[in-house]
Amino acid sequence: MLVLVANLGSTSFKYRLFEMTDDGAIDDIQNVRCLARGAVERIGDAQSKCTVAIGDWSDEKSLAVPDHGVAVQACLDQLTDPQHGVIREATEVAAIGFKAVHGGRLSGVFVVDDALLDAMAEMNAAAPAHNPPYIAAMNTLRTRFPDLPLVAALETDFHRTIPAARREYAIPRSWADQFHVRKWGFHGASHRYIAYRSAEILGRQDARVISCHLGGSSSITAIRSRESVLTTMGMTPQTGLPQNNRVGDFDPFALPLILQRTGLSLDQALQTLASEGGLLGLSGGHSGDVRDLEEASDNGDAQAQLALDVFVEEIRRHLGGALVALGGADAIVFTGGIGENGVQIRDRVCAGLADLGIVADSASNASIKQRVNDLGEASFHAGNSRTQLWVIPTNEEVIVARQTAAALKHS
Amino acid sequence: MLVLVANLGSTSFKYRLFEMTDDGAIDDIQNVRCLARGAVERIGDAQSKCTVAIGDWSDEKSLAVPDHGVAVQACLDQLTDPQHGVIREATEVAAIGFKAVHGGRLSGVFVVDDALLDAMAEMNAAAPAHNPPYIAAMNTLRTRFPDLPLVAALETDFHRTIPAARREYAIPRSWADQFHVRKWGFHGASHRYIAYRSAEILGRQDARVISCHLGGSSSITAIRSRESVLTTMGMTPQTGLPQNNRVGDFDPFALPLILQRTGLSLDQALQTLASEGGLLGLSGGHSGDVRDLEEASDNGDAQAQLALDVFVEEIRRHLGGALVALGGADAIVFTGGIGENGVQIRDRVCAGLADLGIVADSASNASIKQRVNDLGEASFHAGNSRTQLWVIPTNEEVIVARQTAAALKHS
Repeated sequence: MLVLVANLGSTSFKYRLFEMTDDGAIDDIQNVRCLARGAVERIGDAQSKCTVAIGDWSDEKSLAVPDHGVAVQACLDQLTDPQHGVIREATEVAAIGFKAVHGGRLSGVFVVDDALLDAMAEMNAAAPAHNPPYIAAMNTLRTRFPDLPLVAALETDFHRTIPAARREYAIPRSWADQFHVRKWGFHGASHRYIAYRSAEILGRQDARVISCHLGGSSSITAIRSRESVLTTMGMTPQTGLPQNNRVGDFDPFALPLILQRTGLSLDQALQTLASEGGLLGLSGGHSGDVRDLEEASDNGDAQAQLALDVFVEEIRRHLGGALVALGGADAIVFTGGIGENGVQIRDRVCAGLADLGIVADSASNASIKQRVNDLGEASFHAGNSRTQLWVIPTNEEVIVARQTAAALKHS
Repeated sequence: MLVLVANLGSTSFKYRLFEMTDDGAIDDIQNVRCLARGAVERIGDAQSKCTVAIGDWSDEKSLAVPDHGVAVQACLDQLTDPQHGVIREATEVAAIGFKAVHGGRLSGVFVVDDALLDAMAEMNAAAPAHNPPYIAAMNTLRTRFPDLPLVAALETDFHRTIPAARREYAIPRSWADQFHVRKWGFHGASHRYIAYRSAEILGRQDARVISCHLGGSSSITAIRSRESVLTTMGMTPQTGLPQNNRVGDFDPFALPLILQRTGLSLDQALQTLASEGGLLGLSGGHSGDVRDLEEASDNGDAQAQLALDVFVEEIRRHLGGALVALGGADAIVFTGGIGENGVQIRDRVCAGLADLGIVADSASNASIKQRVNDLGEASFHAGNSRTQLWVIPTNEEVIVARQTAAALKHS
């Protein structure tokens, strides 16, 4: 089966084409082969760049791509290129699979239909940056490719196993039941990949693993027996760890004072917290990128240093919550752009935890990139560490490909 | 020196009269002797009940007490009772000391003056239930007793040692600097008492201690070398653990959806979260009292069970954050009404943490009340627990007495 896994930005479309055995289960992450990858950027501009890479061949062309429908058509045209293409007909693609953020009352993997888009629209107020453009793109694609199944794997899906005790807010029950105000969690495809892959690496299905997905957006998930049992994002993806420009955990009861003093409306204040907060806000507007902050901090910028310090302490605080939820961890896994490349961040997150059974080998941590490149993933715990420490590059697309195939089988 | 330590409710006034050596430091908690205790209840009603207990003698009278000024006068009248009183003249009382909640930019211990009350008034929006009635009572007392120093020990005081990395939100710097939107923390007098007393018990000034103040309102503080280094309440006392009827940690980005669906204003929604949330909200309105919830849960009430489960899991989550901040704990201390009496809560909080060095002795935990009564405080860890587990009844009044004496000395 061939599945196109797409990553929809508001003005971009990135994809990979996967070939899978039809009878694989969702956790069969090894039997998924990537045949091609590509991207369409600057959708809506006069000229959009369309790139594709198939094996050693790559192509780039510029053309007018007014919307995501045309973007998918451009992608299919490149994939069926008579000389270099990997498929003969566009109909060989069984489905397009996507990650989708927030379905509220609907969580799981769905062939996109009105019911799903309605449920997502109900959550527009909770995910204003994510849901509306996604719904618009889905409607465009459904109109243009009526015979091509679109499959949405909701980011909340992996967290459906979190017990109620770690899912419910201490709010009136009616708000939880009627408005679906719960800790849904996000980054589901990434944490699911880490759950499956770490179990393979550890050779144990019942391992206790803490998945630290650290990047432009970050969350930590506690995993037991390959299932999520706690995660740091809540009702919306704005909570938990500080993000590049989003606030993370914040006290809603500070809002009246902020509105009073700034004159902002609630929506404006939240918009500020979701665009001028996070590492960007902490650093006094310097940058939301850890690499920039490390450079500035090395040059004596105290606010950049503060941003990094808060980020590390919030990771540690949430790591502690995950540790206690699991009663200790067999492994802590770092993934995502910062998780994979942030040598100092990893070092600081793991520092001083010997009494809790966690000891990093700093030299091994510092030199891990080469081993990850060579081996695909690598560890950096010390010999006396009871908890293994790993860098495992995540692979959300493989999970979405498997989920898409499974959804087609059951639809 | 004699200090009257008062606890101001909106319609109540509870007090203890302490005698101290004048040269004691704030941590000199053993040399503070309680001479009398009493209360005035239902201030503003036609008849208020005024009780006092001095040694074996106790007295109760009913009289009209229209405001807190009259309440203090009634208290002084009883303390100077010619036959049973402990003082001859009201002027022997050097000061009245109080806990005060939120001073925003002012944190510490202050002789009450306009500057302090102004700073507290700036935080009215952040502590609407606490600051306004407090300011009103202070103004009444200042007018009535112009020569009696009033000393306010802010709840945030003990947490001034928390490093910036655990104090700052990931918000625009100007909001933190101009509006004082930071993690201030509360329950300072209680956690400070636990810090000093646990250091005495452990025989170590540098101990790593986690103070779990669990009661009608709850917070957890990580203590290193008798100083707060992390606490669970933030900008306002509504955050952190779920409280009896207050929400605890919540996602502010869920608010637009809630306002949209309920038609409530922001202030109304926050008021609902601060009065119909917490254990009360989780239990579907059944009760905010753990004892009621345990009884209902034993009778099969699933929502009461959920409320207890969420409470335990939130305690554990925050305990984990404190554990990692300290790199492990020498002792975990339970205090407050639930901390001292909640056998099941303590049992569940400590369960399954052997890999992290924490092992409770369940039988010892279940029978601890008698030992606490006999000895003042008692432990319930198992022999193989690296972390000691203690029940230590808190004594906020002793701390406020010492803080008041110190403030007088330096004023």
